[in-house]
Order: sequence, then structure tokens, then C-alpha cells
Amino acid sequence: MPAVRGLRMATAAAGIKYKNRTDVLLMVFDKPASVAGVFTRSKCPSAPVDFCRSNLPHGQARAVVVNSGNANAFTGLKGRAATELTAKSASAAVGCGENEVYLASTGVIGEPLDASKFSGVLGDMNAQAQPDFWLEAAKAIMTTDTYPKVATRSAEIGGVTVTINGIAKGAGMIAPDMATMLSFVATDADIDSAALQQLLSAGVEPTFNAVTVDSDTSTSDTLMLFATGAAAADGQARVTSADDARLEGFREALNDLLKDLALQVVRDGEGARKMVEISVTGAESDAAAKKIALSIANSPLVKTAVAGEDANWGRIVMAVGKSGEMADRDRLAIWFGDIRVAVNGERDPDYSEAAATAVMKQEDIPVRVDIGLGNGRATVWTCDLTKEYVAINGDYRS
Amino acid sequence: MPAVRGLRMATAAAGIKYKNRTDVLLMVFDKPASVAGVFTRSKCPSAPVDFCRSNLPHGQARAVVVNSGNANAFTGLKGRAATELTAKSASAAVGCGENEVYLASTGVIGEPLDASKFSGVLGDMNAQAQPDFWLEAAKAIMTTDTYPKVATRSAEIGGVTVTINGIAKGAGMIAPDMATMLSFVATDADIDSAALQQLLSAGVEPTFNAVTVDSDTSTSDTLMLFATGAAAADGQARVTSADDARLEGFREALNDLLKDLALQVVRDGEGARKMVEISVTGAESDAAAKKIALSIANSPLVKTAVAGEDANWGRIVMAVGKSGEMADRDRLAIWFGDIRVAVNGERDPDYSEAAATAVMKQEDIPVRVDIGLGNGRATVWTCDLTKEYVAINGDYRS
Repeated sequence: MPAVRGLRMATAAAGIKYKNRTDVLLMVFDKPASVAGVFTRSKCPSAPVDFCRSNLPHGQARAVVVNSGNANAFTGLKGRAATELTAKSASAAVGCGENEVYLASTGVIGEPLDASKFSGVLGDMNAQAQPDFWLEAAKAIMTTDTYPKVATRSAEIGGVTVTINGIAKGAGMIAPDMATMLSFVATDADIDSAALQQLLSAGVEPTFNAVTVDSDTSTSDTLMLFATGAAAADGQARVTSADDARLEGFREALNDLLKDLALQVVRDGEGARKMVEISVTGAESDAAAKKIALSIANSPLVKTAVAGEDANWGRIVMAVGKSGEMADRDRLAIWFGDIRVAVNGERDPDYSEAAATAVMKQEDIPVRVDIGLGNGRATVWTCDLTKEYVAINGDYRS
Repeated sequence: MPAVRGLRMATAAAGIKYKNRTDVLLMVFDKPASVAGVFTRSKCPSAPVDFCRSNLPHGQARAVVVNSGNANAFTGLKGRAATELTAKSASAAVGCGENEVYLASTGVIGEPLDASKFSGVLGDMNAQAQPDFWLEAAKAIMTTDTYPKVATRSAEIGGVTVTINGIAKGAGMIAPDMATMLSFVATDADIDSAALQQLLSAGVEPTFNAVTVDSDTSTSDTLMLFATGAAAADGQARVTSADDARLEGFREALNDLLKDLALQVVRDGEGARKMVEISVTGAESDAAAKKIALSIANSPLVKTAVAGEDANWGRIVMAVGKSGEMADRDRLAIWFGDIRVAVNGERDPDYSEAAATAVMKQEDIPVRVDIGLGNGRATVWTCDLTKEYVAINGDYRS
């Protein structure tokens, strides 16, 4: 992972839940960075989500503090006090306003977070922070993840090369105590916050908003995008509109990076052994296609069939039928990989169980459903539902 | 189970999928019975569901044919031909119109159903049919059910005692190859079809429409209610309006029987070891309360926590938050049994992990959530999500 100019990072063990375990990440911007964010749609968001939302209109970031071990969610007034104290500590350590601080927390919920633990470590972290620290940063925010998730892209804006780096954590919307999907993306491009927010809000729809592990939405989901503007030193003229033609390559690179990180999250879904790409075509609208695709992706019966490598296309029909979107049984066609298993509302005349099963044995399984009614299309990604998922989430509380 | 006057039943082995396995149930009404039905909301319903829906406006039933081993779903034009042939065979065997025949099928989907197999058995079945046959009927329609599901109630209409009997099959909306919830209820009361339909449509909402095993909706769900009118011989005057005051006791008995059967289905959910009753109070409306309750009931993280006997109330908060309905984190309160675990948006000050865990060790677990916003309330029932569910649905195709 290359560095992103204008951004330094450090990690530390603050003893949030366990002693001597790396549990805090500090990101420091040398100068105020542009900032954009998208957050959980939960009606019961965590205290850090509330805090970030209230700072976003200010439009400048100097510090990001992320901790694992405690989600600071459903912690009432104590939760708000903890975010305020953390912001105060970060502001003192970095020398910035509290409204230039962003926070994210992951871990157990309902437990008060002792934010005084941050005050002892953030000063040293700021002093030690270094640019070449992305992999360590990704490791610091892991909970039930089995590997750190990083991605990098480069793009040109008006002839100047810029870098986009990102990290993510979380096995979908899920994890013991309902952890979280957290992702932080930064670039040295010089783009203002309003344009950055438009880019991020558009980019999240076909990427992070198109993946599901188990349909359960975290109270803490947070995706943030920062632009340090350091590329201005190379002559990149500041971009102030998301529609600016110079952003074409950047937008493509950003969306590709978001998709990369989102798919890493699904592939690492709890207990998952397979990734399923579900493409729906021929729906009444793109929105209808996405609803049908998510109905398939979230169906326990579809997901257990994938776990069992069972070419059980009847369950796809079931999931299409229950989505609530228009479908005509007698126009439906279904493919596993290149194998058409159903057409015109019945089993394909050339159906081969052996050929369909061979696709199910793959690690990555493409499923395509054509509804036959219109031009709406969408693609989403999910993983299989295994006994290990039940074990991870049912056998003990972490 | 007492008999229901005016109704006889028989079962047979027609060899639908396996030889020498009881796989057909015939219900015969001595005289045309009033009839009502509610069916799956799937946009891809099975051929028998289409067939029943088209016969319902005729309002009279003489015969019901139910088979296991093949769902006759997603079978295209062959599926319709199979229902027509079955109706023809039943009509010949019983001596009635084809529009007085009702059909239901459960089993594998996508396989053409060889309806010619019925023609050989229905005549004998009609000759042998007997009134005292409810338990055998319930057994004949089982698939992955671990026990037959029967219930009976009695009520008075205008001083005349009537009987209501019912059978059901299906482990919720689920089963290998996405079997089915089928239920058939019959009474000797004399009530016309329009009133019967109103009673059934209202009764299904807080009962069969308030249970979920895994959120997957079958293409074949069928619940039918028949009234033979035999109680007219005792002087029961025919009821032609669901609002008739004489129906008060009958409505109560019917709803109680529907709830009994629905809860039997949940308790026998695939792989289930526990039943969870989820009551939501204080929502903005009854509809909002039901949506929140179903969001909790369908959450894999809530259901795995129940399987693990883990008093993980944070997952309840998560499920409330993701429901999309209005909630105020700081007004939420949650109980497991009589133990309040959270209040005012944080853990209860008197929280006892031991007391909460003791509730989770019960076989039946009551969960109550108060949203604190209004007067909307709803109760739904679900079961836990175990490794056995994954094994039943992922390890093999039956």
C-alpha cells in the first residue's frame, strides 16, 4: 500500500476491553481535509454515528479515532459523554477543533465506553503517526474478520496522479454483538467536501449497499472518505463539483475501490465458504431488480443450498416470488454460471443436474435471473449460510 | 378428535414420488360446503394455488385433494394440465362439478406431477372415506414435520353446539425444496361462503400471518376453511354475515384454533429447539409494531442468540433499528420474560446476566419490547436458528 500524502496513522493498545490488545487507530491529517460520510440507516444508531453526522456539515477533518472492543451503542447519555470526551482528547492531542474529529467504535454494545482511556494514548499516537501504515491500520480495526481488508487505486485529475487508499472491517452487517462494517478511504486529491459527498453517496449504492451477509443492519455502519488535497502541490486544481469532467477517472477508480472493499467484506462473512454474485435482469426497474436480488441474497433457504452445493433453483423461484416485486412465473429464466436451469416458468428442457452441480462446487458462484418484464437490472453479492455461522453467533457471546 | 358432521376423509398411496408411502388425502363433503381460503402472497404461486383461487368465487366445495411428494410448482403449462386432470378425476370419483374441487400439493418443485396416478385411487378413497379420520389425515400431509398437527374446538351458534377441526403441515414457510404450510379447517356450522371468507381473512392476521420460521415464503401456502352446514339439522339458522352477533363464540373458537395450529407449525420449525414469543408495544401503530416484531423474529442474529441461550439484547436493539419503523433509542425498553434488561436507551441499572440467562434456558421464551412512542402493539412467534436447520436445508436435497 502506497502512502496518501497529508495523512499519517498510528495504533495503540488502550485497554478498552482487553489488556495489551491493539484497539485504537488514530488517523491524522496534516491540514484540514475535505470529508464525506455515509452511515447506517438504523433508527437506533450508535453514539459515534450521531457524533459524525453532527460534525459533517462543518466539512473539515483533522483526526479520526476508531476503537474496537466496545461499540458505544445503546449507551444512552453516557454514550454521548464518551464521544465528547474522546473528541476533546483527540482535539488536544492533534491541536484541532472538536468539530474536526471523527469517531467510530466497534465491539460489544450496551456497555458504557470508558473514554478516559483514550486521553492517555492519543498524544503519543499523534507523535508516532506515520504515512506508511495502512495494513497495520486495517488490522487494528478487525473484530471477527479473518484477514485485514485493504485496497488502493490511482487516477489522474487534470494530468496529476492521485492515490486512493481504503481499509474496511466487518463480516457484512454481522458479527458477535452485531459488530459493524467500518470503512475509511482517503485520497491526496484536492476535492471539496460537497463534491466528495456526492461521489461517495453515488458510489456506495452499487458497492457497499449491494452486499449482504445476513440482512442484519448494524447500529454502527460507517463509511468515510477524506481528501487531503496534497496533490495541489503537484498542480492539481481544486475540484468543487462532482459533475466536473476531470473527475471521470477518479470516480471510476473510487467506485472500483469501494467494490473491492465491499466484496472483501462479503467473502469474509462469518462462517462463509462461498461468495455468490446475484444478477437480476429484465425487472420492471433497477430498484425492483435490486429488491429481487436482495430477496434472493438474504434467503436462508438459498444460502443453505449454496452451503450444501445444491443446485436448488426452486428456492430462487421462491425468493423471486416473495420479493413483492412484479414477476411472471411463466417468463422467468435462471442460470447458475453459464448453465440455464429454468426457462419459461419451468425446468430447462436441457437441464443437467451434473452441469448445475459443477457450478455450485465453485468457490465463486454467479447466479443470474431474468424476470422477462422490463429493462431493470441490479447485481448484489452474498455468501453462504453455514453451520459455522450459527456456531460463531450462537455458541458464545464474545 | 371428534368428527365434523358432513365430512369424510381417506388417505392412499398413489406413488407420487415413492412407492407404498401414504401421499394423498381426499376430503369429501356429503353436500356442497361453504368454502373460504387464503393463499401465499408469492408472485410465483403453484398451480394448485391458481386453481383454488379460480374456483373460490363459485363458493361451494365437495372434494379436496391434497398430495405430498410433488408441489406442482414452477411446472408451467404442465402444471395447469395436472390440476385440471386431478379435478376431473375427483369430480368423477365424488360425483360433483370440477369447480367444487380444491387442490393442494407439497413436495419437490419444478418436477412435472403425474396426475394420472390420482385417477386410480380416488374412487376407492371416496368409497372408504370416514368421518373419524383427522389424525390420519394430518399424518398424510406431513413432509419434514416431526409430528402431525391437529386441533379441535367447539362453540355455540344460537344455542346449537358446533365443532371446528383443523389440521396443518409445514415447518413454517420452510422445508427442503421449500415445501409449504398447508392447513385445512372444517366445521359443521351453517355459515355462507362470504361470511366464512371474512372470518378467515380476519383470523389469519394474528395467527398464521404472525408466525415465521425463516422469512421464506412458500409458493404453495394454503389455508382453507369449510362449513358443511350439518348443524342446520339441530336447528342452527344459517349465518350470512360475519358481523352477526351469534358468531361471537364461533369467531373466538376459530381464532383460537388457528393460533393453536400456527404455533404448532412454529414449534416444529426445522431444527428448532425453542419457541420465541415477541410482543411489541408502544409503536406508532399496530402495523408498525408488527413490522418491528417480524424484524426481530426474522433476524438471524437474534435467532442464533436464542439457539445459544444468550441473553444478547443488543441484537434486539439492532433488529428494532433496522425495521425502518420509527423508534427512539432513548425510550426503548426490553424484557426477557419478566426480566427488564434495557430501559431508557441503555442497559437496565438492575441488569442481572444470571436472571436474563435463566429465561433464555427455557423452551418457550417471551420477549417484550416497548418502543415508547404510541399505542401500537403486535405479537409474533418464531423459533431459534440452529445448526440442524443448516444441516436439514444444506446437507442434501430430499
